[in-house]
Amino acid sequence: MSVSIIILAGGKGTRMKSIKPKVLQTLAGKPLLRHVLDTCKPLNAKHTILIYGYNGQMVKDEIRDDGIVWAEQAEQLGTGHAVQMALPHLPKDGKSLILYGDVPLTQLDTLQKLIDSNMDGISMLTLEVDNPFGLGRIIRDDGKVVAIVEEKDANDSQKQVKEINSGIYCVDNALLHDYLPKLNNDNAQGEYYLTDIIKMAVADNVDISTISPTLAFEIEGVNDRIQLANLERTYQAHQVHALQIAGVQFADPSRVDIRGTLSCGSDVFIDINTVFTGDVRLENGVRIDAGNIITDCTIGENSHIKPNCVLSESQIGQGVAIGPFAHIRPKSDIGDDVKIGNFVETKKSTLHAGAKVSHLSYIGDAIVGREVNVGAGVITCNYDGVNKFTTEIGDGAFIGSNSSLVAPVKIGENATIGAGSVITKDAPDGKLAVARSRQTVIDGWQRPSKK
Amino acid sequence: MSVSIIILAGGKGTRMKSIKPKVLQTLAGKPLLRHVLDTCKPLNAKHTILIYGYNGQMVKDEIRDDGIVWAEQAEQLGTGHAVQMALPHLPKDGKSLILYGDVPLTQLDTLQKLIDSNMDGISMLTLEVDNPFGLGRIIRDDGKVVAIVEEKDANDSQKQVKEINSGIYCVDNALLHDYLPKLNNDNAQGEYYLTDIIKMAVADNVDISTISPTLAFEIEGVNDRIQLANLERTYQAHQVHALQIAGVQFADPSRVDIRGTLSCGSDVFIDINTVFTGDVRLENGVRIDAGNIITDCTIGENSHIKPNCVLSESQIGQGVAIGPFAHIRPKSDIGDDVKIGNFVETKKSTLHAGAKVSHLSYIGDAIVGREVNVGAGVITCNYDGVNKFTTEIGDGAFIGSNSSLVAPVKIGENATIGAGSVITKDAPDGKLAVARSRQTVIDGWQRPSKK
Amino acid sequence: MSVSIIILAGGKGTRMKSIKPKVLQTLAGKPLLRHVLDTCKPLNAKHTILIYGYNGQMVKDEIRDDGIVWAEQAEQLGTGHAVQMALPHLPKDGKSLILYGDVPLTQLDTLQKLIDSNMDGISMLTLEVDNPFGLGRIIRDDGKVVAIVEEKDANDSQKQVKEINSGIYCVDNALLHDYLPKLNNDNAQGEYYLTDIIKMAVADNVDISTISPTLAFEIEGVNDRIQLANLERTYQAHQVHALQIAGVQFADPSRVDIRGTLSCGSDVFIDINTVFTGDVRLENGVRIDAGNIITDCTIGENSHIKPNCVLSESQIGQGVAIGPFAHIRPKSDIGDDVKIGNFVETKKSTLHAGAKVSHLSYIGDAIVGREVNVGAGVITCNYDGVNKFTTEIGDGAFIGSNSSLVAPVKIGENATIGAGSVITKDAPDGKLAVARSRQTVIDGWQRPSKK
Repeated sequence: MSVSIIILAGGKGTRMKSIKPKVLQTLAGKPLLRHVLDTCKPLNAKHTILIYGYNGQMVKDEIRDDGIVWAEQAEQLGTGHAVQMALPHLPKDGKSLILYGDVPLTQLDTLQKLIDSNMDGISMLTLEVDNPFGLGRIIRDDGKVVAIVEEKDANDSQKQVKEINSGIYCVDNALLHDYLPKLNNDNAQGEYYLTDIIKMAVADNVDISTISPTLAFEIEGVNDRIQLANLERTYQAHQVHALQIAGVQFADPSRVDIRGTLSCGSDVFIDINTVFTGDVRLENGVRIDAGNIITDCTIGENSHIKPNCVLSESQIGQGVAIGPFAHIRPKSDIGDDVKIGNFVETKKSTLHAGAKVSHLSYIGDAIVGREVNVGAGVITCNYDGVNKFTTEIGDGAFIGSNSSLVAPVKIGENATIGAGSVITKDAPDGKLAVARSRQTVIDGWQRPSKK
Repeated sequence: MSVSIIILAGGKGTRMKSIKPKVLQTLAGKPLLRHVLDTCKPLNAKHTILIYGYNGQMVKDEIRDDGIVWAEQAEQLGTGHAVQMALPHLPKDGKSLILYGDVPLTQLDTLQKLIDSNMDGISMLTLEVDNPFGLGRIIRDDGKVVAIVEEKDANDSQKQVKEINSGIYCVDNALLHDYLPKLNNDNAQGEYYLTDIIKMAVADNVDISTISPTLAFEIEGVNDRIQLANLERTYQAHQVHALQIAGVQFADPSRVDIRGTLSCGSDVFIDINTVFTGDVRLENGVRIDAGNIITDCTIGENSHIKPNCVLSESQIGQGVAIGPFAHIRPKSDIGDDVKIGNFVETKKSTLHAGAKVSHLSYIGDAIVGREVNVGAGVITCNYDGVNKFTTEIGDGAFIGSNSSLVAPVKIGENATIGAGSVITKDAPDGKLAVARSRQTVIDGWQRPSKK
Repeated sequence: MSVSIIILAGGKGTRMKSIKPKVLQTLAGKPLLRHVLDTCKPLNAKHTILIYGYNGQMVKDEIRDDGIVWAEQAEQLGTGHAVQMALPHLPKDGKSLILYGDVPLTQLDTLQKLIDSNMDGISMLTLEVDNPFGLGRIIRDDGKVVAIVEEKDANDSQKQVKEINSGIYCVDNALLHDYLPKLNNDNAQGEYYLTDIIKMAVADNVDISTISPTLAFEIEGVNDRIQLANLERTYQAHQVHALQIAGVQFADPSRVDIRGTLSCGSDVFIDINTVFTGDVRLENGVRIDAGNIITDCTIGENSHIKPNCVLSESQIGQGVAIGPFAHIRPKSDIGDDVKIGNFVETKKSTLHAGAKVSHLSYIGDAIVGREVNVGAGVITCNYDGVNKFTTEIGDGAFIGSNSSLVAPVKIGENATIGAGSVITKDAPDGKLAVARSRQTVIDGWQRPSKK
């Protein structure tokens, strides 16, 4: 059976006080709408119809996925009106999942159950909550859904009902084509309500089934910065909990942020205030100390990231020690047993096994050989103002402190560079190269005095 | 009507275990007493009478505001006794607000309502609380306040009363002059209680009105480090909440500290573990990453402060990128589109638009021109041991890595400085200046061996 | 009376998903079992019998305390079976404390009370809890313990009992020798239960007394990463609370980690996200700013550690200012009034009073005299690839920026080193030493163009 996906993404989100439409606000580093789209991807829906409205061009600029059908909702006249905009693009047969760009965390298995639960009627996502106040109640008769009653219309016994309407449905397309054109806005708000299709379905004795999500946050929508931050923390706690079950040790489960995918081997320890963005993989025995910010990296077995580092888009080998205060910039390929110390920056460089860069250095566009020792304050001068050049350092070389290696330049195997040298020509294997002035003493010299 | 302010600030705060008097303990980076004084400032009170006592000289040294009348309470004999000390300085007419140096967060509008609510009697600040245990209850008869009953004196029905006495009053001065001299200390503690003036007022049928604060923390006092830390967190949460309502996105509302005033434009994102001190202004679209410590700065539109920076007393332009690991020290004036990278320190320097200082540099007492590129490891040598001097770098200059610019010195427009140079004389426009030794190879040289 | 200690440490801890046995998982930076051993140390027990099992060699490798008797439990057949393994090593007289390597936080005074409470019977550690569901209930008759009933065997009235069995007992050794061999495994799990000795003791009318711990966490065991993290936070909160009572001011009690012992003088302020490991002592008036990681250090009066530093195994004097972004590595001895600024690393060095190292420097294996000023970017070149050498800098010396001091080398008193010099020979007192090239201008030179 073919499934279409309709996502309502037209709202402004006035309470966000933003120039961006609400669905572009970010949760866990990703626009709300992007969460919905990513979750739906494995459903391989034939049509994904995005109902856009407020500042819709921004949505289009941000969401450039192939195969999205854009349907404009020029005025915001209610949820029913929004779904009406999808009708021209909707097949006559199959069914449609109706989702919301500001309800970001409905899980795939929940959507799949919703799709599977009803063959030619409506399946609704509902949830029993402790405090249903303000939410639409699911009214049942002998177990069968007979109505959705809003708070303001509910009588005392209906107010006791704890099962609420999420607004997320899977509906037979024939019913949508039948019911949506019949919606009216004869109500106080003058809006077209999607819930009215349930009323019609009940009247027609259509089969209405319900599914509940595993997690309460799956149906939570976001209307302001407070709800957004609360959902962020709920989601973070959920992700951390799953990793704990998988055996990851966190020093403080409430002080970690995962904005993407974090996967871990066994015996991984993650200290306080770490932030993981994009795809991060930590192999067995990795230790991530406090205050690390790690984006799109793989870190090999038993490597140790000391406090307060920033690592991005890089590969870290096994048994590596990095930090504290190291900045591993994109395309750093850090070999096994490499040691990178404090105030060191690497960028687009390969450091082969056992190399050491311990202090105050910049290694950019460089290839650093095995067991090389780079002294403190060494700079690869990779940029002449317009072009970038490569520095190559042979295995076993020793680069004296405060040296400048002016690329393009090659340092030979087992070469030694004298401290403080500016190296502009290739240095031969196994020899000492220096570029240094004689030390002299100025005898009659007077210390400056206070001016 | 003239209003005087009486602030009780004589207590030691034994449980603080501090050499400082309690009112000098800090909340949100500011002494408790300073909060009270700052809140009262817009009231433009004719007299502000500070009742000091324990370690009073420290209070006087810290609080140097003009126009404070200092009244000593040599012994700590109760709240009534403390207010008695104000009497010699108190006008006969007008009214007085009685406040406490250890109740820091009463809000201005609450004080204003207290002043306005009663013309010639007593207005009290009271609050209904869930758990009134241990606190003085407000006893009413037919709505009228008839007594304050302490926990130990309360009967069962009085113990059910949830309205409590904050101790904060606004009292007609004539009543203070009448009642305070009549206080006695015939009680178990041998103290003079301020609450006894309410007893006298009730007996005299004085008009007693009550006002409630908007926020519960407005009447919270601080007696130990636990209460202090709890009030700190409550206050921080309150400030963050107000910014969320205004549209600021926080990654974690419980991990931000505002010690002063933070004002934000639209679409500002503030990541975890940020600390804002003094007056900080973030313009539209600013992004503050994790672990930033920002004091007295203005940050322009769409600028991005990357993780783990410290910025103080500086101006940051638009479209600027700073960090990670940058230290922007006072009087840095960072122009639009400037890029400051890792392990860079600036101090008392102007960086004009488009300048780049990307790595491991110290820029002090310098003027850096437009589109200048400062290489890695460049130091402005601004200090000769006694004096500081200025470095000027012309527009478009390129400063090679690991160079030292010995101030006072000028680098010309579009000049280039060779890597590793020590520049002691002015460098001309558009030319290459170098101070560098010839590179030589030492042939017979042997690597050192283990000693 | 002689006391033996039996610690059950044989379990795997399957839910930890670790290659390490459960008792080696860490809480507050220390293996769970190490907590138990450290707590017991002051009891000076004659015998400490460690029952090991799963991956026992790892336990033996980690716990190398003198005088431990290792008793293997080859199969995990229940708590009674585990204690049976101790029997061959247990004296006939005296008593034994039965503890668990995965119940890490029972306090010394609780153990002492347990030992003291009963001379020739059994004393049990029990606790009344709000939610006893799932735990063994202490059934009493006329106040006397008559049974421990597990949840599954409890009748409705027994399920109401809130007093639970911790499994921690102090038992007369004669009873252990008598009862343990009689245990059987005729139960659903086929395990030997230690609780059965209570059944036998009741039957024999042995005196059974109970003791309750002061703190609920004292009897909490750890079976998975979630419980481990929860106990970590509970323990951290407990430690912070004790320091608050002692007068320490924390900006946020929930954002500090103490992994060892933190002792503080008066008026110490500790900002957010600090981590203390090992033994740390902060004297009066010390201020620790946000994001500091401090291990095994003593910090003198009124010293100020600015944000984001890492300090390890060092002594810091009085009135010192360190950071932000400083790395004080082991064996740094920092004198009074020293100032260490940003991006500075010290290691195995002595800095005498008043010395300043303000920016971007590496001070390793050095002795820095009084009032020395070390400029920005100065490196002590202490390593030749195989050996480490010492740099000595005399009192009052001024080391120009970007200098390299190639050890072994001595800089005289009040000597000045010119900026950018590579100093390889001793520099005399009071004079200027430089090693610097002439500055030249290359006239016909062309800026590089884009390739």
